Amino acid sequence: MGADQVENGGRDDSDKVEVNIYPLNSYYFGSKHAIPSKDYSLHDHLQRFKSNYAASGMRINVEAVLMVELFKHPHLLVLQIKNSIYKLPGGRLRPGESDTDGLKRKLAKKLSLDEDEGQWEVGECLGIWWRSDFETLMHPFLPPNVKHPKECTKLFLVKLPETQRFTVPKNMKLLSVPLCQIQENHKIYGPIVSAVPQLLSKFTFNMIGI
Amino acid sequence: MGADQVENGGRDDSDKVEVNIYPLNSYYFGSKHAIPSKDYSLHDHLQRFKSNYAASGMRINVEAVLMVELFKHPHLLVLQIKNSIYKLPGGRLRPGESDTDGLKRKLAKKLSLDEDEGQWEVGECLGIWWRSDFETLMHPFLPPNVKHPKECTKLFLVKLPETQRFTVPKNMKLLSVPLCQIQENHKIYGPIVSAVPQLLSKFTFNMIGI
Repeated sequence: MGADQVENGGRDDSDKVEVNIYPLNSYYFGSKHAIPSKDYSLHDHLQRFKSNYAASGMRINVEAVLMVELFKHPHLLVLQIKNSIYKLPGGRLRPGESDTDGLKRKLAKKLSLDEDEGQWEVGECLGIWWRSDFETLMHPFLPPNVKHPKECTKLFLVKLPETQRFTVPKNMKLLSVPLCQIQENHKIYGPIVSAVPQLLSKFTFNMIGI
Repeated sequence: MGADQVENGGRDDSDKVEVNIYPLNSYYFGSKHAIPSKDYSLHDHLQRFKSNYAASGMRINVEAVLMVELFKHPHLLVLQIKNSIYKLPGGRLRPGESDTDGLKRKLAKKLSLDEDEGQWEVGECLGIWWRSDFETLMHPFLPPNVKHPKECTKLFLVKLPETQRFTVPKNMKLLSVPLCQIQENHKIYGPIVSAVPQLLSKFTFNMIGI
């Protein structure tokens, strides 16, 4: 068995899905003013969620899967908020906004100093989660007989350039977490982030510059 | 919010990934002679695995994700073996065999009377699992520092025609299991099958003829 076969998993050439990732230390990290939360409590969040649904329909979120290399293993960039909440960078689409435009706008807001700083190549959709009702968990399918879901969250693979500056709000931390730590770690990372290793498993990561 | 927006999840048209699925009752199910297991015990299996690795290198398995519609919800076809083992139909590639050829051969062996009976349109690779060593669990990534994995299992979405006859070995049962039952049900379905709902979440299933 040659090294090539290991790298591409014995996959047919026609089926190769390769993604270049770069070392964590090829990126620069700074901080900026905090982005205050819109809600003081879970109750506030629920009230805002319901009134937004009444006004504009289903809430659509777009989130980014950003990968870097560290210790020869792919790492996912995750935002840590209030010490115990882990989220992918992204957020809610405006009515009528496209997935790509919305995700770029949100990445600029959460990870850049201004709109010109970051380069975000929005790639394929990796997965979609649905919330059937205002207070239920999200599922990776539309449950039977649910005709009017209240929220959907779409994950996109976003390819990073060789180098870039990230500017992160002071009330958040940007962590790089190894895929092997995230995998099946629902309790810490929640159902969406903990599914990322599986959603990425079909890709071959080319670790550049190591 | 219109019905269209619910159906495509508000997704951009450019990004639509649609799959037609047909009702379970549009398929016919029969049975054929049992396919005996190659191993009497786990020990036998391990011995055979090791000697095959020494002779031909990493074991590559290809498995099919076959979907049908029942009660307006997507269902996955799963083989039940010995009452407690649930597997996707598929099996081991021969040395040099392509993923597609191997998967079609295995589907004919496990689900058809002969090679001409089934129509299997092998679609995209959904995920790849790796086994680092002979006795470890499979992971959806190559763990750090593993250069010579012993086994890899690739899942493919296989599109079914509008109607078809399935002929299943007598020592197996072909079950249609709703995605909502499989999701996160590791204990019963194991790590690979229980990840299928997430791997499929980016697709829109068009349920035909209901």
